[in-house]
Amino acid sequence: MKLRGNAVVAQSGGPTAVINSSVCGVIQEWLKADPPGKLYGALFGIRGVLEENLLDLSKQPKHIIEGLRYTPGAALGSSRYKLSREEDYARLFEAFKKHDIRYFFYIGGNDSMDTADRINRFADKANYEIRVIGIPKTIDNDLPHTDHTPGYGSAAKFLAATVRETGLDLQGLVTSNRIVVLEAMGRNAGWLTAAAALAKREEYEAPHLIYLPEVAFDRERFLQEVAAVYREYRFVYIVASEGIRYADGNYVFAGKEKDPFGHVRLGGLADTLKEMIEEELQVNVRGITLGTLQRAAAHFASRTDADEAYMVGAAAVKAAQRGESDVMITLVRDEKAATYRCSTGTVDLSTVANVEKKVPADWIAPSGSYVQNKFLDYARPLITGEVSPVFKNGLPDFIHLQDFDLPELRRRLDSDAASTVK
Amino acid sequence: MKLRGNAVVAQSGGPTAVINSSVCGVIQEWLKADPPGKLYGALFGIRGVLEENLLDLSKQPKHIIEGLRYTPGAALGSSRYKLSREEDYARLFEAFKKHDIRYFFYIGGNDSMDTADRINRFADKANYEIRVIGIPKTIDNDLPHTDHTPGYGSAAKFLAATVRETGLDLQGLVTSNRIVVLEAMGRNAGWLTAAAALAKREEYEAPHLIYLPEVAFDRERFLQEVAAVYREYRFVYIVASEGIRYADGNYVFAGKEKDPFGHVRLGGLADTLKEMIEEELQVNVRGITLGTLQRAAAHFASRTDADEAYMVGAAAVKAAQRGESDVMITLVRDEKAATYRCSTGTVDLSTVANVEKKVPADWIAPSGSYVQNKFLDYARPLITGEVSPVFKNGLPDFIHLQDFDLPELRRRLDSDAASTVK
Repeated sequence: MKLRGNAVVAQSGGPTAVINSSVCGVIQEWLKADPPGKLYGALFGIRGVLEENLLDLSKQPKHIIEGLRYTPGAALGSSRYKLSREEDYARLFEAFKKHDIRYFFYIGGNDSMDTADRINRFADKANYEIRVIGIPKTIDNDLPHTDHTPGYGSAAKFLAATVRETGLDLQGLVTSNRIVVLEAMGRNAGWLTAAAALAKREEYEAPHLIYLPEVAFDRERFLQEVAAVYREYRFVYIVASEGIRYADGNYVFAGKEKDPFGHVRLGGLADTLKEMIEEELQVNVRGITLGTLQRAAAHFASRTDADEAYMVGAAAVKAAQRGESDVMITLVRDEKAATYRCSTGTVDLSTVANVEKKVPADWIAPSGSYVQNKFLDYARPLITGEVSPVFKNGLPDFIHLQDFDLPELRRRLDSDAASTVK
Repeated sequence: MKLRGNAVVAQSGGPTAVINSSVCGVIQEWLKADPPGKLYGALFGIRGVLEENLLDLSKQPKHIIEGLRYTPGAALGSSRYKLSREEDYARLFEAFKKHDIRYFFYIGGNDSMDTADRINRFADKANYEIRVIGIPKTIDNDLPHTDHTPGYGSAAKFLAATVRETGLDLQGLVTSNRIVVLEAMGRNAGWLTAAAALAKREEYEAPHLIYLPEVAFDRERFLQEVAAVYREYRFVYIVASEGIRYADGNYVFAGKEKDPFGHVRLGGLADTLKEMIEEELQVNVRGITLGTLQRAAAHFASRTDADEAYMVGAAAVKAAQRGESDVMITLVRDEKAATYRCSTGTVDLSTVANVEKKVPADWIAPSGSYVQNKFLDYARPLITGEVSPVFKNGLPDFIHLQDFDLPELRRRLDSDAASTVK
């Protein structure tokens, strides 16, 4: 089953605090082969293959490869480019052939697993032997058939710490700002938003109310719930997913634009809820919008998460080497173990692509505005342990790959519509 | 000079990540006296004295006192209550007399130093012997006569890490979101906003543009600067203070309400700049509004800052015991030392009250939209070192003072206008 040839690893979509830890796993496992083929990093996602911006990763110094374990953002560069046209696939395989690429490791979420699946089918049709392995990554934790997704644990840990810390700030200060609304990422699945509940130790502490996209939002019920908590404690901490919708399917806040995959861009929900509450209850509200910090806060990454991100990267190489293809690596929790234990498995890409895993209905409180202990039991082990980055001058000294002139390459990639400016 | 009697420590205004470290310094230094009088914590700031909600801090277990060193928020509770009426002062001294309070330690910013100064003057008039010491605290770093202010270093460290991490996220992802606007706290002084510059290592990295309240904001120049960076790198990272104003003095964003001190409430600046850029340059912008996390992120506090916060607390007790009053403790940097060294001093409260220290003009770039190396040299030592909180289940296990029923007391404090709800 040994397949000679070279490999490419690419990162896709929004980064996470530990996405580079998966790249590190791929590199270090790949270099164990005897002799290894070349391992290229595709710069800025699938576009790096299309445009042949390929970086030979075996040439990177060891300390830089090791530094990938604690560096956030996409170290190889990422993009949201969608392979939509037949020409794209033809171009992709032209590049594969030219560089004798026989292994393709694609780190991404739902959309990327769909792309990986299509690449595999195209290879079958074209009779080109290649092993395509999906490596899961998303803070949204919405991929099916895997217990959880690398990236989620770190985002959950940072979000929970944020809620605990700003919750202490809120409860300890008597002022006219008495309500906080924190807007959490997560378009259709409330996993990250739900993680806010990990912050609470005492009943009166933050968070008090949690709104997930799994539950239809009702304005009147929301205002009643906020008012009830306010009457009880005189301060209210609310965490809401950017993706909450009314029963009619309309987003509570929706911008006008769509991304290349046709998803509506979200954001600004905190302000929408702030206005709703201030108008109705006459209490000052403060919005917190962490934005991309939720997926980038490597300074407070989960050690469990970082290690698992590495593990799925290494497992992808092993799976490909033993002949598997068209699969995504999964995380498998040992449900029988007394303490948390997790190993890897594989699942067909076709069963992953475009399926979103949501928070189960029986993990959500009957009120619809909090979570059950089942969720807490599930999430708690995923945020344990801390990662120690290298520090310099008081800040994490994240690495940058050598021979990668990022600003120069970004200038050259300047081809899509949004990049024009007066 | 020995003055027998009891002491009160109170926290005022917005908390910081290390405000409780100052309380810890006060307690541990006070308990060294032989015999110490009682040391009360005033619950929810000066209101705790007015309403006689006083907690005997010597009764707290040692591990809880020690836990104050890494717990954010105001552990004693804080408020923005302004002693405005003659009756307030009369009531305050009635409580002082009743509990034989002869030492008053007030941890706060500008407004609090003014209050402390007035209390001292009232005591002189009333011929009541008491030693009033101000302990500086503010993430804004705008108190005069002190090299810097406890709370600033931790906020600066967290903000700089945030900018570095979300900057990596931005530069490594080619998508239609190409500009980030991060809104930083700081009403009239740009110290915290300027700290974003600590994040940058390479010229192309975040942040690219920094807007401080010290420089009048010009819409056209701003849009030109953003467009110029965008043309150069195809991504732009902007950090702006919530308090930036146009040349005519109007805030770029200003809410309608005022706080009890008559200051305009700010917030929403990120959205204002986002709209400005999107309208003019047709590039998608993402806003980040960290809100109170800037002053609460104890999980990434500066060790230097936490230690200095402790130091000013202890120094306040020592100053009072040697007979000083009507002074604020200051941090004094040894300008001659080869490496950073800092000790404490004192300065008359009257020279501190209501004076705001701004970023010097020659520390700001000639363009007005970045900082000079002088600022970086000043700020860099303040963010060094990390604090290790006690962890439980993956999160910092912040302490809560014993015998302080926070929700019950908050209900009772429910007397100001903003606390009514339908």
